[in-house]
Amino acid sequence: MKIALAQINYHIGNFEENSRKIINSIRKGKLENVDLVVFSELAVSGYPPRDFLEFRDFVERCQDAVEKIADECHGIAAIVGSPSFNPEYKGKDLFNSAYFLADGKVQSVHHKALLPNYDIFDEYRYFEPNHEFTCVNYHGKKIALNICEDLWNLGNHPLYTINPMDELMKENPDFIINIAASPFHASQREERAEVLLQNVEKYRLPLFYVNHVGAQTELLFDGGSLVIDPAGRIHDELNYFEEDFRIFDLEEVQHPLSGEKRKNEENKIERIHDALVMGIRNYFYKLGFKKAILGLSGGIDSAVTMVLAARALGPENVYAVLMPSGFSSEHSVQDAEALAKNLESPYDIIPIEKNYRSFLDALQPYFKNRSFNIAEENIQARARGVILMALSNKFGYILLNTSNKSEAAVGYGTLYGDMNGGLSVLGDVYKTEVFELARYINKEQEIIPENTILKPPSAELRPDQKDSDSLPDYDVLDQILYQYIEMRKGPREIIAMGFEKEIVDKTLKLVNVNEYKRHQTPPILRVSKKAFGMGRRMPIVARYLS
Amino acid sequence: MKIALAQINYHIGNFEENSRKIINSIRKGKLENVDLVVFSELAVSGYPPRDFLEFRDFVERCQDAVEKIADECHGIAAIVGSPSFNPEYKGKDLFNSAYFLADGKVQSVHHKALLPNYDIFDEYRYFEPNHEFTCVNYHGKKIALNICEDLWNLGNHPLYTINPMDELMKENPDFIINIAASPFHASQREERAEVLLQNVEKYRLPLFYVNHVGAQTELLFDGGSLVIDPAGRIHDELNYFEEDFRIFDLEEVQHPLSGEKRKNEENKIERIHDALVMGIRNYFYKLGFKKAILGLSGGIDSAVTMVLAARALGPENVYAVLMPSGFSSEHSVQDAEALAKNLESPYDIIPIEKNYRSFLDALQPYFKNRSFNIAEENIQARARGVILMALSNKFGYILLNTSNKSEAAVGYGTLYGDMNGGLSVLGDVYKTEVFELARYINKEQEIIPENTILKPPSAELRPDQKDSDSLPDYDVLDQILYQYIEMRKGPREIIAMGFEKEIVDKTLKLVNVNEYKRHQTPPILRVSKKAFGMGRRMPIVARYLS
Repeated sequence: MKIALAQINYHIGNFEENSRKIINSIRKGKLENVDLVVFSELAVSGYPPRDFLEFRDFVERCQDAVEKIADECHGIAAIVGSPSFNPEYKGKDLFNSAYFLADGKVQSVHHKALLPNYDIFDEYRYFEPNHEFTCVNYHGKKIALNICEDLWNLGNHPLYTINPMDELMKENPDFIINIAASPFHASQREERAEVLLQNVEKYRLPLFYVNHVGAQTELLFDGGSLVIDPAGRIHDELNYFEEDFRIFDLEEVQHPLSGEKRKNEENKIERIHDALVMGIRNYFYKLGFKKAILGLSGGIDSAVTMVLAARALGPENVYAVLMPSGFSSEHSVQDAEALAKNLESPYDIIPIEKNYRSFLDALQPYFKNRSFNIAEENIQARARGVILMALSNKFGYILLNTSNKSEAAVGYGTLYGDMNGGLSVLGDVYKTEVFELARYINKEQEIIPENTILKPPSAELRPDQKDSDSLPDYDVLDQILYQYIEMRKGPREIIAMGFEKEIVDKTLKLVNVNEYKRHQTPPILRVSKKAFGMGRRMPIVARYLS
Repeated sequence: MKIALAQINYHIGNFEENSRKIINSIRKGKLENVDLVVFSELAVSGYPPRDFLEFRDFVERCQDAVEKIADECHGIAAIVGSPSFNPEYKGKDLFNSAYFLADGKVQSVHHKALLPNYDIFDEYRYFEPNHEFTCVNYHGKKIALNICEDLWNLGNHPLYTINPMDELMKENPDFIINIAASPFHASQREERAEVLLQNVEKYRLPLFYVNHVGAQTELLFDGGSLVIDPAGRIHDELNYFEEDFRIFDLEEVQHPLSGEKRKNEENKIERIHDALVMGIRNYFYKLGFKKAILGLSGGIDSAVTMVLAARALGPENVYAVLMPSGFSSEHSVQDAEALAKNLESPYDIIPIEKNYRSFLDALQPYFKNRSFNIAEENIQARARGVILMALSNKFGYILLNTSNKSEAAVGYGTLYGDMNGGLSVLGDVYKTEVFELARYINKEQEIIPENTILKPPSAELRPDQKDSDSLPDYDVLDQILYQYIEMRKGPREIIAMGFEKEIVDKTLKLVNVNEYKRHQTPPILRVSKKAFGMGRRMPIVARYLS
């Protein structure tokens, strides 16, 4: 039996495009005498469709797409993910389903049993969990067909009380197909392979695993679909961060001639780099935009953002605006200019001094004798925001936000100023990782001026300001933030690791009291296990560690 | 048996204050020879604690609070809501529990079985559903104790496959206690009473129902705790929108001498008014702020927002800033000034013309011969935003956002301009309802100048602009929005109701393509069944009806 895995970049709600891509893959399969083409979870709608699933109209369009795809399945079968209506009067209205299509129609529908409802996942919001398990019979083979999380309940502390594969094993299947939408984070590749290998080890069956690829706003799907032989070796690994289509002979997977074929060995920073480039590219493409604008300060965050954007969109499509104030150092403008020139991207210099002064004048009767403080600092950042948004509005650029995760965590940024943007590129990248990205970018030649990397970080909103005036050193800060945000350790546990109580308490308080700022920030490309945004839901009004 | 219901305004994560309030109520009960004081769902932590529940430290502090409260329970019992740890190795780590406290310690713990995971609710994100049901035995009575949603599964289309009360009835209980955190929307009072009455009708038992009261960021809890006699009549109804404590004799509830005692008969607009005032007041109090700032345009949205804020915080604590541009009509400033004077609130007039010009000057080399459009309009709104935020930063005001739900829906507002604010007061109030609120406010005397109510709505960002230039009439628009947002009807269904296809398609497209703007707006006080924000989760990058 010839099985093809189709790893596709879907567009949520774009039924026409998704169906076209699926049908093209089926036709390609036919030309190659494939017996079965496998698509990923919720392929017809794109993943995650979120509350569009609450619209009957939306789900009916999914059903229409499935019918249309089934029409193509003559002399070939397909497995395709789609929501389906729950026919029972009890329970939620929908299932998250895998359709088995053959002979021009739907042969059977198999529902997801384990519904992830943590971090960025909300599946129990929409779907009823499956309780009936049957294999697919096709060309004399029995297929244990299941969906993503269904394989993720092994281990010592299972989140769910059942294992769908245990149920499916009762029918003695020949192999496993798992259709997935498993989002990227920097160590997900290993964790995912480990989980799949545990299943193969337990059930001793070959496994075909098809993942999504492409970005859906903040969620990045890295692809890397896998085929694992019954001995628990990687038979093949599809490409990362791009669409792919590969054909496998079941016989060869069941009885492999050789061992492990795994090959993708990018390190963490390379992966983050590639994921962010894909994230920017898809965000623009799927929204129908081509050009980005950003404020280039001479600092490392905007420099790295600009390089990533140039790689995603082409340097000619990234417009940098340098907006010095009276507090900007000379080198800032030089460094920013050097970067734009290195990239051959368009840039302009628009000083904000007069705009800043115009606000000080307007406010003078009210501010009077009050001393310079955060209010004046923020006026500068907001004046820059007005200029960038005016250019964005006039010429149809999307503004890229350049804040990093460390800043976003402790609220070191100006709401409606430098926190503006349609998309936050580095909002899930700690400052120490931004430096690693810069070094990675400069690996072969100096693209980001060395001075941008070497100088002490500064917002340059008052004379001789440095980040370290108000924040702990990033080395320490990032470790504390990681323990609190990713590992969800409390203050007592973090202090017990050896961090100073005063710094821990101050940091955690800053994180919590700045929730209101993060509530109003753009979507953040997710590269860690816990990004700010949909995967981290915190009260704004609260008094915990604050 | 004397039972007290304690309806309390909790503060999320403020264990000290929540415990103090709970203990004070127990002490008050003791003085009145009460046998049992009942507190609401997740009382010790406040509801909803959201992802704080993922911190072991947070849940341990809840446990400590329960222990401390148990210490007070000598000669009196208490029922108090708190998260508890799941001792099983399978399933989620926590239960949403009701603790029965007596004789100075925890006597039993009863977990919630039905976990709402729709709209604003995320309970399956944190909690394992209960599968074991036992009544509380106390003073010779059996109490069917359960939690909020546990009573909400009657009807023809049940969301869950079990009914906890059916299980508890096996022990033949004497009465029902339900501890709740049931958030307000304009028709929730009737729906809630109806659900509770259905339970009494089915199980023929008296029911004691204790709700939260107070605002938790966007969620408004209206209180209105209920006691229902076994014949299905309202025995008593606690106050709405404020804390309350009442004592009942079980015997009298079981064998009532008289009939219905229901009394609160506010209409929808009164309720929305009261809910918003409570929402503003609690937001400021719980964040430790006293003073609000807002831009007062002379239009109806900012006028209504200002009156609500003045009622919540005191007129002396609401600072209005009038920021005319060259496009502002003379009556706008007059109307705004008249309102501030009527309220006796402080106000200032800060024209933005020079700030606006300073940006046009800076951008002139780039804008050149391009004609005036949305870019210039937005500069005005953003210049106002800079001034308001500068005053907010300098003097510690919280900026109130004045956008209404109709505008927020179709994206008729400037991101980083008039969409700024710490809290959106009217973001869940359609424009037609804003007019109703204005009429209600002016019921007894003219507070909002009549001209503000009568003149055609306009953003005044270009000469002779009116909202109706770019939007359908609000009467029609609001109906279409209601069908799409609250009722989740698709375009085919809305057109079938008799609305013009062109207007429906345009409206739905505007709603969907402006998701990116709503993603960055402040929390919105929720008064409808479907507010923008945590209860409506939409993809930004998508192509559905757009």
